[in-house]
Amino acid sequence: MLTTTFFPKSFASDNHAGVHPAILTAIAEANAGDAPAYGADPWTEAMEDAFRAEFGDQATAYAMFNGTGANVVGLGLMLRPYDSVLCPATAHINTHEGGAAERVLGAKLVLCPTDDGKITVDDIRDHLSVIGNTQYAQPRVLSISQVTECGTAYTAEEIAELAEFLHSRGLFLHMDGARLANAAAELGCSMRALTADAGVDVLSFGGTKNGAMGAEALVILRPELDPPALFLRKQGMQLASKMRFVSVQLTALLTDGLWRENAAHANAMAHRLADGVSDLPGVSLRWPVQSNAVFPALPEKAITELQQRYLFHMWDANENVVRWVTSFDTTPEEVDTFVSDIRTAVSAHS
Amino acid sequence: MLTTTFFPKSFASDNHAGVHPAILTAIAEANAGDAPAYGADPWTEAMEDAFRAEFGDQATAYAMFNGTGANVVGLGLMLRPYDSVLCPATAHINTHEGGAAERVLGAKLVLCPTDDGKITVDDIRDHLSVIGNTQYAQPRVLSISQVTECGTAYTAEEIAELAEFLHSRGLFLHMDGARLANAAAELGCSMRALTADAGVDVLSFGGTKNGAMGAEALVILRPELDPPALFLRKQGMQLASKMRFVSVQLTALLTDGLWRENAAHANAMAHRLADGVSDLPGVSLRWPVQSNAVFPALPEKAITELQQRYLFHMWDANENVVRWVTSFDTTPEEVDTFVSDIRTAVSAHS
Amino acid sequence: MLTTTFFPKSFASDNHAGVHPAILTAIAEANAGDAPAYGADPWTEAMEDAFRAEFGDQATAYAMFNGTGANVVGLGLMLRPYDSVLCPATAHINTHEGGAAERVLGAKLVLCPTDDGKITVDDIRDHLSVIGNTQYAQPRVLSISQVTECGTAYTAEEIAELAEFLHSRGLFLHMDGARLANAAAELGCSMRALTADAGVDVLSFGGTKNGAMGAEALVILRPELDPPALFLRKQGMQLASKMRFVSVQLTALLTDGLWRENAAHANAMAHRLADGVSDLPGVSLRWPVQSNAVFPALPEKAITELQQRYLFHMWDANENVVRWVTSFDTTPEEVDTFVSDIRTAVSAHS
Amino acid sequence: MLTTTFFPKSFASDNHAGVHPAILTAIAEANAGDAPAYGADPWTEAMEDAFRAEFGDQATAYAMFNGTGANVVGLGLMLRPYDSVLCPATAHINTHEGGAAERVLGAKLVLCPTDDGKITVDDIRDHLSVIGNTQYAQPRVLSISQVTECGTAYTAEEIAELAEFLHSRGLFLHMDGARLANAAAELGCSMRALTADAGVDVLSFGGTKNGAMGAEALVILRPELDPPALFLRKQGMQLASKMRFVSVQLTALLTDGLWRENAAHANAMAHRLADGVSDLPGVSLRWPVQSNAVFPALPEKAITELQQRYLFHMWDANENVVRWVTSFDTTPEEVDTFVSDIRTAVSAHS
Repeated sequence: MLTTTFFPKSFASDNHAGVHPAILTAIAEANAGDAPAYGADPWTEAMEDAFRAEFGDQATAYAMFNGTGANVVGLGLMLRPYDSVLCPATAHINTHEGGAAERVLGAKLVLCPTDDGKITVDDIRDHLSVIGNTQYAQPRVLSISQVTECGTAYTAEEIAELAEFLHSRGLFLHMDGARLANAAAELGCSMRALTADAGVDVLSFGGTKNGAMGAEALVILRPELDPPALFLRKQGMQLASKMRFVSVQLTALLTDGLWRENAAHANAMAHRLADGVSDLPGVSLRWPVQSNAVFPALPEKAITELQQRYLFHMWDANENVVRWVTSFDTTPEEVDTFVSDIRTAVSAHS
Repeated sequence: MLTTTFFPKSFASDNHAGVHPAILTAIAEANAGDAPAYGADPWTEAMEDAFRAEFGDQATAYAMFNGTGANVVGLGLMLRPYDSVLCPATAHINTHEGGAAERVLGAKLVLCPTDDGKITVDDIRDHLSVIGNTQYAQPRVLSISQVTECGTAYTAEEIAELAEFLHSRGLFLHMDGARLANAAAELGCSMRALTADAGVDVLSFGGTKNGAMGAEALVILRPELDPPALFLRKQGMQLASKMRFVSVQLTALLTDGLWRENAAHANAMAHRLADGVSDLPGVSLRWPVQSNAVFPALPEKAITELQQRYLFHMWDANENVVRWVTSFDTTPEEVDTFVSDIRTAVSAHS
Repeated sequence: MLTTTFFPKSFASDNHAGVHPAILTAIAEANAGDAPAYGADPWTEAMEDAFRAEFGDQATAYAMFNGTGANVVGLGLMLRPYDSVLCPATAHINTHEGGAAERVLGAKLVLCPTDDGKITVDDIRDHLSVIGNTQYAQPRVLSISQVTECGTAYTAEEIAELAEFLHSRGLFLHMDGARLANAAAELGCSMRALTADAGVDVLSFGGTKNGAMGAEALVILRPELDPPALFLRKQGMQLASKMRFVSVQLTALLTDGLWRENAAHANAMAHRLADGVSDLPGVSLRWPVQSNAVFPALPEKAITELQQRYLFHMWDANENVVRWVTSFDTTPEEVDTFVSDIRTAVSAHS
Repeated sequence: MLTTTFFPKSFASDNHAGVHPAILTAIAEANAGDAPAYGADPWTEAMEDAFRAEFGDQATAYAMFNGTGANVVGLGLMLRPYDSVLCPATAHINTHEGGAAERVLGAKLVLCPTDDGKITVDDIRDHLSVIGNTQYAQPRVLSISQVTECGTAYTAEEIAELAEFLHSRGLFLHMDGARLANAAAELGCSMRALTADAGVDVLSFGGTKNGAMGAEALVILRPELDPPALFLRKQGMQLASKMRFVSVQLTALLTDGLWRENAAHANAMAHRLADGVSDLPGVSLRWPVQSNAVFPALPEKAITELQQRYLFHMWDANENVVRWVTSFDTTPEEVDTFVSDIRTAVSAHS
């Protein structure tokens, strides 16, 4: 029995949050007798409809277990065996996926340094000079994260500029959208505006960090890339047998704007947190808050003290930058208490 | 809205069933505030304890999304880059995993024909003659399915004989235990007797087919194989961020014998079904019923007629053998109705 | 110092022979100052011309180091990540390439049993039933060996029948032509008749076993498969820097019919050998001689005795079938001496 | 007919040179009747002896077709499926091997920027912080090039410092020694002093760039890494059937100091070339000459003019740095003529 389990509110990750009640309810309602496995069920069909409604009629969506799976299967749609993937050095596919891209896809990741996780046309132009040179893996796709691992958000115009350049050179644009909802909420636009309408070819849509139990989606926005998807998902070990229970989580997020409500709330909590500490001497934000993450530099001793009571990660130990992440269920009170404790700790050590 | 969805009881797969209520409840109870991600939570710790209680203190268990993931990660613990996997030609890893073993592990599967899905020492002896020959992929592990894809069950003695032979030759024994519970229920023994005590080195433990929503486990029974497991699970795209919701499903199955109750019931329904048709002229069982599957040969026209109302798969179109599978929630009444319909259809076409 | 090295004529493999003098001369003549590396040299251009002359204007040829490299790179031209390769169980890619296809291509080999190494449409038809089923690796190409590992040769008609069937189903035909020259010499036709004209899409052309020092070629007969070849050869570790010295070996073989002369001689020696022993009681040929290999069953003790003086391999220890292979430089006298020794040994033990 | 082929002396690559006469002679002498294939021949045994004499009794050597093959197979000896390879960003395995490491090994390359191609302990220390973190590919081996792709040479002490640090952290040291001979010649030491004695674990030994026709070797200096070598070479498509003709090239280089003679000459020609231009206004050397390569910055128009008559590569188009490489057979006269032409071109455009 786990009756006495207690965790304080975590500011370490939106993966530490639980499941939104509406999603739990949707799961329970889907437990209604038998249904065909592997996606041939009405709940999955409804999920596919929901993605078309959100991203456009040409969009096809495939439920996935996790973001690494969605990224690897999605990139696999575009890669020939001798291709490489351009990405920021900070990209999750580079730093936090255990080498899955190299192992499963056999693909080289070509890393581009950035200041804030956001890549520009200038960052990739030089890398294209090897196109046609048979000694080199061939650049085929750029993978960007929205929002980035630095919490920053691309505007629709920035994405469109990348897409236009890439397409003009025969490359594709992939988006790791683990927190796409947070970007759209922050920018006050649709997710479609940041993806299909901006020229994104393949999207990993994140549900888990935004209130789902465990549900991501591969969303293909360029139909000619679609044919291998079912085969690659199966081979990529991402095919759920009782898929309906994954599908309903995604549908719930896409219904009545739950995705936006959750993301907007998480973002608001991040701003509240940043606002609460930004006037403190010795505290500076490494990047502007554009989603549900805050990256402040703090006095080292304040970090040590705070980590005894709060869960959060060191981001850059050389510069004492930490990462705080808020979630769909972070409350203003939790933020305010945290702010108060931060202020005390920083004051004591600055 | 899916208000009018109706599916008759499926006899196609235990993946068509829903989720056992106790497991849904366990999931809902785990939704209790924040918890560390990626397995550093008390629910996952409890799950690991439950596996040790069931399989012995040396067992380590890792939650996985699906059986293909568990198989691929588990085999990966044992394989060097130039190794092969021996398995029956009927093995799920060969026929139903989309080539994942070859793609992700880069390993050759060496297939052994069997009559009934069960492999013996004699079936593999000749394949070991290439050991040490550098022109050949090197046999490293035998993968057996318990129960087999033919619904047949190995006895503990049969498994021990395989393990002893393999170990004496420096090979390992892997078990795809997607339906291990059904075997243990049928044989009236513990799961440990069929695995750890019989010499199985690595096990894929199946939860989903036995009432879970989506939860499998890699169980390592030989501790020296354990070290790479966390790395390979991550790279194998099987690491759940909100892992507690997978872990509690496994714990629920291992609590108060729910796994055995579910499996025994499904097996009983398969026997009831087989018993109900076995006296019919024109009906013969391809293999004895030793779990929750029945493989009868039927008149072709009876198959066609029944498939208009019931979901089940053709197994061998050349010999008109079909597969019927029962589940933890198949009722005697559903079986009896099906039997009645089968008898009518067969009588009309024999 | 190797002054006293002595090897009797080997009947174990055409890889045991040395290099034809014309090829050594061609190599020495190519050592004429500097030349661009990686194939941008006139000798390589001449080699490409020679292949076009032999196989048709649409043929593109790429020098490779060995047969495994040619097979793997060639198959890679046709495979999507989720595809499988159909081949006879005896295929070199299955039995003697160390699992390279699975490791480098990530592809499943689907094995078809044959009596004599030759595959027919009936052998593969059933395997195509999984096309479109996303649980299965997808059959994409059939790989046949000409001559087969059993020494048997496909006729042009047999190849055309396979190609026609495969193409009608959207599959490709690959030929491992390590001993294609021997087939053409035996059948009295051009190599083109057995490949391009019969519908072969991709060919591994063997030079080494037919008198070269170390030179094979990937020959692409269907131009739309050509584009990735340079990239895959590089990645497949088959790109020679001083390529001219590989290219001239191939050109020499294709000049003035040297390939046919060498192969016809080797074949004649195999027939002479087979004819010399076929009347012996206790000796029977496992397969008809259709190239430069003979597969006789012999009394076990005769094998043991002969292997003390001659190099040759056991083929099937259960049936005491051995393999004798002749080469471009095997002399009639060497054959006759061998025949005499065989007759003595067999007579002593039958 | 290639009667009118003419190439001026190339300064583009030591791969443009032909074959040293002693090596051609050794090849011709090895063409002495039959010999077992795949390395079971006395010429290969002699080659293995020669490597032991040069690198120490614990060294095992395996003939390889090319440097990419030697690197990939050699790295494969050390890597677990979830490991990464640290290397300079300039490493040949990163920039010029077509993504072979990622495809065949499934390994991530972790790039370290350097000024001059030479890596130090400080360059890699931070990368080891992820050891034990299961979200990351695990650093397992550092691969350095001797000489580097910038033509610079590590001293024995620099290598030993790297090895000591790596071994203390449980990592290995790999050396891409495509031009190891040039380093040893430049530093006036043995190749053993720069490898086995300095702590290198696995070496790719280069023969082709130093006068061979096409011969490299994988040299294992840490015996416990040896067991998989034969299997990985076969699977890595690097196993020559008529291996004696590769082996004798390596033996010839290691006999009577031919390797040093060739390399010392090439180095001397590079120094002569650098010395001949270093006083020119507008010419500066990007890196010091420490082997057989010169990397000067030149006026852009001079480059254009010179490339109309001479083969050499642009190294850095942004800074107008080119690469000139000399070979075992570059003559002083060829260098002097080139110097004269350079002086004229530069004078005209500075």
